[in-house]
Amino acid sequence: MPPEVSPLAPATFPKLPDINGVRLAALACGLRYKGRTDLLLAEFAPGTTVAGVLTQSTAASASVLKCRESLGGGVAGALIVNSGNANAFTGIKGTQAVENITSAVGSAVGCAGAEVFSASTGVIGEPMDDDKITSALADLKNALGGGSSAWEAAAGAIMTTDTFAKAATATTKIGNTVVSINGIAKGSGMIAPDMATMLSFVFTDAAIDAKDLQQMLGELNQKSFNSITVDSDTSTSDTLLAFATGAAANDKNAEMDEFKNALGELLLDLAHQVVRDGEGASKFITVNVSGAESETAAKVIAMAIANSPLVKTAIAGEDANWGRIVMAVGKSGEDANRDKLSISIGGVEIAADGAAAPNYDETPVAKHMKGQNIDISVDVGVGKGCWTVWTCDLTHGYISINADYRS
Amino acid sequence: MPPEVSPLAPATFPKLPDINGVRLAALACGLRYKGRTDLLLAEFAPGTTVAGVLTQSTAASASVLKCRESLGGGVAGALIVNSGNANAFTGIKGTQAVENITSAVGSAVGCAGAEVFSASTGVIGEPMDDDKITSALADLKNALGGGSSAWEAAAGAIMTTDTFAKAATATTKIGNTVVSINGIAKGSGMIAPDMATMLSFVFTDAAIDAKDLQQMLGELNQKSFNSITVDSDTSTSDTLLAFATGAAANDKNAEMDEFKNALGELLLDLAHQVVRDGEGASKFITVNVSGAESETAAKVIAMAIANSPLVKTAIAGEDANWGRIVMAVGKSGEDANRDKLSISIGGVEIAADGAAAPNYDETPVAKHMKGQNIDISVDVGVGKGCWTVWTCDLTHGYISINADYRS
Repeated sequence: MPPEVSPLAPATFPKLPDINGVRLAALACGLRYKGRTDLLLAEFAPGTTVAGVLTQSTAASASVLKCRESLGGGVAGALIVNSGNANAFTGIKGTQAVENITSAVGSAVGCAGAEVFSASTGVIGEPMDDDKITSALADLKNALGGGSSAWEAAAGAIMTTDTFAKAATATTKIGNTVVSINGIAKGSGMIAPDMATMLSFVFTDAAIDAKDLQQMLGELNQKSFNSITVDSDTSTSDTLLAFATGAAANDKNAEMDEFKNALGELLLDLAHQVVRDGEGASKFITVNVSGAESETAAKVIAMAIANSPLVKTAIAGEDANWGRIVMAVGKSGEDANRDKLSISIGGVEIAADGAAAPNYDETPVAKHMKGQNIDISVDVGVGKGCWTVWTCDLTHGYISINADYRS
Repeated sequence: MPPEVSPLAPATFPKLPDINGVRLAALACGLRYKGRTDLLLAEFAPGTTVAGVLTQSTAASASVLKCRESLGGGVAGALIVNSGNANAFTGIKGTQAVENITSAVGSAVGCAGAEVFSASTGVIGEPMDDDKITSALADLKNALGGGSSAWEAAAGAIMTTDTFAKAATATTKIGNTVVSINGIAKGSGMIAPDMATMLSFVFTDAAIDAKDLQQMLGELNQKSFNSITVDSDTSTSDTLLAFATGAAANDKNAEMDEFKNALGELLLDLAHQVVRDGEGASKFITVNVSGAESETAAKVIAMAIANSPLVKTAIAGEDANWGRIVMAVGKSGEDANRDKLSISIGGVEIAADGAAAPNYDETPVAKHMKGQNIDISVDVGVGKGCWTVWTCDLTHGYISINADYRS
């Protein structure tokens, strides 16, 4: 049963420009899905630098382990991504499959296997049929090219249970040089049924040293992909990679603030799209926590609220149930001043100084709860730490996707 | 809409004997619920000792804070419990309400207010109408008595969204003296909609010093109530109190192992009943983890599995989806040897040595998944730490209870 498109999906797929130094192709190699693309190859110009953030799971997939090794080199020749099989918990055969794939891709595009980055998303624990991938390489290589349709095909090829393809683009400057950034992502929340989860790939023609890109990406990831949750389940395959071809030939030593801001906004856009495709989602929820002991404490509290099944079901029921928010703050384990705690929903103060707000008018809040975008703000009254996370509600749709249909 | 009785409920309510030194009464004081009992008073013989374990929530209810103070004294004269209002996040007025109630109960039964223990369960954040409770005390006092129907009424009075009353009883020995233990509990999982959650009260005629009882209760609680979860949401009101009247006049210095075992089994029985009343539950799930670095690590891994929405929805769908179990092990953050990990469901090994088990026969596992009791065993291959936790599945019923009906 093909899922309908999420009600929170953007109206249209954005038009992505080409990135100088990147050529792409996608096709259907028949790994699992019938009649849809499931394999993406990107080829990079010589000298392309790379940075990445990978899952913290101790059961990380074979591709993730290989990427972790290759990131040390800081140089990328190609990216190969398949959907349909996560190649996770596949033992030594899984490791061998990644070696076969990256080495074959390296031969095809003319770079070392260690400079080929790979990612796999799909069923966990099923042996990976790497022959299907390597046999498709000749066709993929012949199809390498550009154009906005190639970018849309790339975003489509990495989908699993996603209900829409996810992409974003930005144009910015380093010094006086104009540079472009394209990003694609997949994920139907932090997880997907039977599936490994979030993948995101970012491509830019900027010239930037691998270690500078790594530092920037690591920091920006904290406030984007690491600040979203659908259901608190962490994937074995989470992979965020950024490739910089250097074709724009900007001054690498110029001030990078404008570029960093643009990259941060692009990552946040992609992260929000993942939440908007959260399984069964009907509301997009922003949780702001302030007044915590530190940024870290604020994030822990915000995640306790965003991951609480009681808070998420209340929002699905359009119920401004702030008692459940108090519960979630309390269970987070972080310091909160019970007698200074305040809670606002949709900008209306519901609770203040540790009790229900006097003269609280439910009318505007009830109206807010009926909308698609829900804003929750909590001040825990002990310090200056702030953080924002994003999530979706927990609905019958989530149960249907994950329990009603057998894998 | 009154909930139907959980399909996992025990067939009958157990017949509880009287406990020498304990008199009980329950009635309807009209705090929130119409036409059902919502207030319980227990009066204890002079010299009754008490021990307790209370929620770790930083937003603990006013009653919890008061119990924490009173436990220092180690002596109990009475217990008063209401359902319908949690008296949590109610500020200074909530604190005052508890003072009024415990002081009035003390006057009624003839003990100090500091020796009155109280618990409240119900809506969070709503002012507590303590007049309704104090006005009912004269009637309650007149009704104090015993008999198995009084015990059943007591278990019923503390229910909120529970679909059945929960109790257990045990007879054991300290030295040559026979002693009895009765226990009652409420909870529809770790949480209940709009409600605070798990309460449990244990009564025995054993003579035991408060500090010995406290040590025993704290330890046994770890392997019972602290090893269950429905949906990972922790209440502001969790309260486990044990009262020992001493009427059996056993030797306090005798070996207590048999008593401790009986108490442990009784607590585990009550804890399992709470899981069996988990919101929307259709399966009772046991998760055994072995081979972890320590007992603590094993418990963290077991809880990561038991709290995973993906694992719980797979079980609801009767799908032996072991890839999701691998995911949950990986996200726990505890050490696991990916290449030694093994997983059994219903006693059948599905995965071994970090990959799908060769010759795995799905037939007996598929049959097991259709039953009401699901057993999952995971060995993570790094040490000797073991732990067991219990949970239920995540179904459309959970969403309906928590989202479909407005509070």
